[in-house]
Amino acid sequence: MKKILIAAVALCVTLSAQAQWQTLFNGKNLKGWKKIGNAEFRVENGAIEGISRYGTPNSFLRTEKEYGDFILEMLFKMDERINSGVQFRSHVIDGRVRGYQYEMDPSARAWTGGIYDEGRLGWLYPLTVNPAAKDAFVHGDWNKLRIEAIGGRLRTWINGVPAADVLDDRDASGFIALQVHEIYYEGLEDSKVYWKDIRIMTENLEYEAYPENGIAQNNCVPNTISEREAEEGWKLLWDGRTTDGWRSHKSPEFPSKGWHISDGMLVVEKADGAESGNGGDIITKEKYGNFILSVEFKITEGANSGIKYFVNPDINSAAGGSAIGCEFQVLDDEKHPDAKLGVKGNRTLGSLYDLIPAPADKPFRKGFFNKATVIVNGDHVEHWLNDVKIVEYDRNSAQWDALVAYSKYKNWVNFGNFEKGHILIQDHGDEVYYKNIKIKELD
Amino acid sequence: MKKILIAAVALCVTLSAQAQWQTLFNGKNLKGWKKIGNAEFRVENGAIEGISRYGTPNSFLRTEKEYGDFILEMLFKMDERINSGVQFRSHVIDGRVRGYQYEMDPSARAWTGGIYDEGRLGWLYPLTVNPAAKDAFVHGDWNKLRIEAIGGRLRTWINGVPAADVLDDRDASGFIALQVHEIYYEGLEDSKVYWKDIRIMTENLEYEAYPENGIAQNNCVPNTISEREAEEGWKLLWDGRTTDGWRSHKSPEFPSKGWHISDGMLVVEKADGAESGNGGDIITKEKYGNFILSVEFKITEGANSGIKYFVNPDINSAAGGSAIGCEFQVLDDEKHPDAKLGVKGNRTLGSLYDLIPAPADKPFRKGFFNKATVIVNGDHVEHWLNDVKIVEYDRNSAQWDALVAYSKYKNWVNFGNFEKGHILIQDHGDEVYYKNIKIKELD
Repeated sequence: MKKILIAAVALCVTLSAQAQWQTLFNGKNLKGWKKIGNAEFRVENGAIEGISRYGTPNSFLRTEKEYGDFILEMLFKMDERINSGVQFRSHVIDGRVRGYQYEMDPSARAWTGGIYDEGRLGWLYPLTVNPAAKDAFVHGDWNKLRIEAIGGRLRTWINGVPAADVLDDRDASGFIALQVHEIYYEGLEDSKVYWKDIRIMTENLEYEAYPENGIAQNNCVPNTISEREAEEGWKLLWDGRTTDGWRSHKSPEFPSKGWHISDGMLVVEKADGAESGNGGDIITKEKYGNFILSVEFKITEGANSGIKYFVNPDINSAAGGSAIGCEFQVLDDEKHPDAKLGVKGNRTLGSLYDLIPAPADKPFRKGFFNKATVIVNGDHVEHWLNDVKIVEYDRNSAQWDALVAYSKYKNWVNFGNFEKGHILIQDHGDEVYYKNIKIKELD
Repeated sequence: MKKILIAAVALCVTLSAQAQWQTLFNGKNLKGWKKIGNAEFRVENGAIEGISRYGTPNSFLRTEKEYGDFILEMLFKMDERINSGVQFRSHVIDGRVRGYQYEMDPSARAWTGGIYDEGRLGWLYPLTVNPAAKDAFVHGDWNKLRIEAIGGRLRTWINGVPAADVLDDRDASGFIALQVHEIYYEGLEDSKVYWKDIRIMTENLEYEAYPENGIAQNNCVPNTISEREAEEGWKLLWDGRTTDGWRSHKSPEFPSKGWHISDGMLVVEKADGAESGNGGDIITKEKYGNFILSVEFKITEGANSGIKYFVNPDINSAAGGSAIGCEFQVLDDEKHPDAKLGVKGNRTLGSLYDLIPAPADKPFRKGFFNKATVIVNGDHVEHWLNDVKIVEYDRNSAQWDALVAYSKYKNWVNFGNFEKGHILIQDHGDEVYYKNIKIKELD
C-alpha cells in the first residue's frame, strides 16, 4: 500500500511538473498590460491597484496578448463599495469592451464568481443558479479566482468553491482584463480593487482541469440541447430555424404574417398592439401536462406578449382575441398601461395573468433576454424568472376556482384545471423576441 | 387454564341468565301496541307489517307502556322506496309524536342507525359523524337494530356495527313506536316496512351494555362539556347563561341592547337588518390562533349573521359596520339577497364570505340548529357544516393574497394572515340563535 502511494505521489509530481503556469503580472510594473478608459491602475506592494474615479466609465487593464483555451488564477481584494470583474476572451467592439466577465461582487447580492457577458447578453450565470457559491467570497481580504475556459465550456471558482459552469460558443479567444467599474454616485470615488499572483496555463488543460463538480450548467448556445440537458430529459420545443411543431391557434398552419425567424430568434412583429390581431398567437402542435418549460424572451419598449399553458384553442375559436390558458405574462411593466390595470399588480411581467402578481422586486433584466420557467407538477404550478421563483399556486381546488371566479377568466369552465393543454406564445402586436424554448416532461 | 375457562364460561352463563329480555311483540297480534295516524299496521308471517298510504302523515305503532332506561333489539326489513324509524322515549305533544328516533334509511344517504329528534331538534347524530356505519345496513333482508338508552346516554347499532352515541338529557322515558313515514309522492304508496323479534331489557343494564367502541360522541346537552370533550381539550367559549368572556367589538363592555340570552341560547335580536347597526358585533375577550371552533346556529327567515375569526377590532374601529375578519357566513340563502351577490355563491351560508363559496349541496338543515365548525391549523383553514367539510383554504400565500385582493377585503393589510385574532358573532339586525359555542385549542 505504501509503495503504491509513493508511486502515485511520484506520478503526480511528474505530471504537475507539466503544469506550466505563466506569470501575467511581474509584481513590479504593468509590463504586458494596457489601459482602456480613465480609471487609475498602478502597482502597490506587489499588487495591481485599480482606483475608481467619479464620472469615469468602465475602465479596464487588459493583457496585450489574447488567450484562447486557458486556466487562469489570481488573488483579488476589493473595496466593499463597488463591484468589479475580470474579463476573458474579450474584445473591444464599437469602442466598448465586450465579452465574458468573472463577476466580483461584494454587495449583499454576492454573485462573485458568476459570469456576466459584458456589453452583450448580460448574465450568463448569475448565482441564483448556484446559491451555494454565494458564501465563498471573503470580505476585506484576498480571494482566489479560478477560470477554466476550455473549448466552449467556461467554468469558475471562488476560493475553491465551484461558482459557474457555462456552455457558450461565441468567443474562442480574446484578451484578459481587470475592470474598474464606472461610478455613478459621489462618495464611491477612490474605491479600490487589488489583483496579484496572476498566472495562466494554456497547455495540457484537459489534464489540469478540475473534476466535474455537479453544479448546474447553463447552456448558452442558442437553441441547442447540451449533453447534460439531454440526459436530464430536456427537448427543444423550437428548433431555432423553422416553424416545425408550431401552428396558429386558429388553424393547423403557422401564421402567414406577424412572425418571423431571424438569427436564432422567433420574433413577434410590431403591429398595432392588438391582442392576436396580426399574425395571431402560435401554439405547440402537441399538448403538455406535467413539465418544466423554459423560454427566453426579450421585450422591446412598451411591449406586451405572453407565454400560455393549458391552452385549449377550441373553447374560444369563435371569439376574437387570444386563446384561453394560464399565462406567464410578458410585458414592459414600465411602459405598457396594462401593468397598472388588474389587481395589485397581477398583470405585470411574470404574473399569472390577472390572477397572481409577481413580486415587484422580481429579477427582471431590462434590455436583455430573460428566462421564463413554468413548472407544472400535477396541481402545483410555479413561475420562475431568471431562476428565481416568483409565483406559485395550486389548481384544481375550491380556493383556485374562487380566485378564477373573480378574474377575467370567470366564464371559462374549468379554467386552469385541465390535465393537458397546448403551449402558446402570444402575438399582442408588439415586437418581442423568443429563443431557447425547451421543455422537460415530468412523470 | 382449562379450569379457569370453564369457570369463566360458567360465570357468563350465570350472569347472562340474569339478562331478562321481555318480548314486546307476540308474533300473532298487536296486543300491547296502539296506532297513531292512518297508515296500516298488521301482522303477517310473525312480523308487524307497516304499509304507507298516499296523503297520510307520519303514522306510528306505539307501545302502550312507557320505558325509561332499556336495551332494545329487533329485526327489521324495509322497502327501498321510503325511510322509516323506531321512536324511543317519545311522547305525543301538540298532537304530534316527538322524541328520539332510530333512523331506518335505505336511501343512498344510508343513515340507518343515526338518531333523529322527531318533531323537535332534528338530527342529533347523522351518520356524517360516523361514516363507517353507513355500510352496515343490508338491503332487502332483515337487519338487526340495537338501542341502548341508559341515563343521559343513547347508543345505537346496526347489525352489530356501532352507529350513534349521543348525550342528551331531555327525555328520561317514553313510548317506543314503529314509524311508517308520510308519503308525499304518488308511486310510493303501499311501501312496506316489517319488524319482528322485538325484545327489551330494563334491568342490569350497566352490565349488559356493550363495551365502549370509540365512535364519535355527540354531546347534545346544551352548553356543556362532556367528560370526553374535556379529555379532548374542549372548552366552552360561552357558558350558556351570562355574557362572560364576550364584549362589544367597539368597547370593553357587552352591548347594552341588540342581544339577549334565553333558554340556553344567545340571541341576536331583530332590528332593521343593518350590519352591526343595533347592538353591534360581539367578540371574545381572548384571541385565538390554532383551534377547532364549534358553534350551533339557527336562522330565522331572511336572516343574516356570521361567525368571524382572526378579527382585529382595532383596524376599523373608526369606520362603521362589522369588524374585519375571515367569516363563516350565516345566511338564509333562499330569502336574503346577499346570497345572489358576490361571485359564484361566495356569500352563501358556510362560505368564506366574499372569497370561497360553500357548495350548493351543503348539508344545511332548514328550520333546525346547524353546526358550524372552523378548523384553523396553522395556515390551513377549513369550514365544516354539520360535520361535512365545505370550504378549505391555505392562507399566508401569494395565491391567498391574490384572492383577497379581488374581494371586499382588498384594502385590509394582511387580511386573514394574522397569527391570532378574536372570534366574533355578527349582529346584522336579524334574529339568529346561537348555542353550544365551544373551542378546542390546537398546538
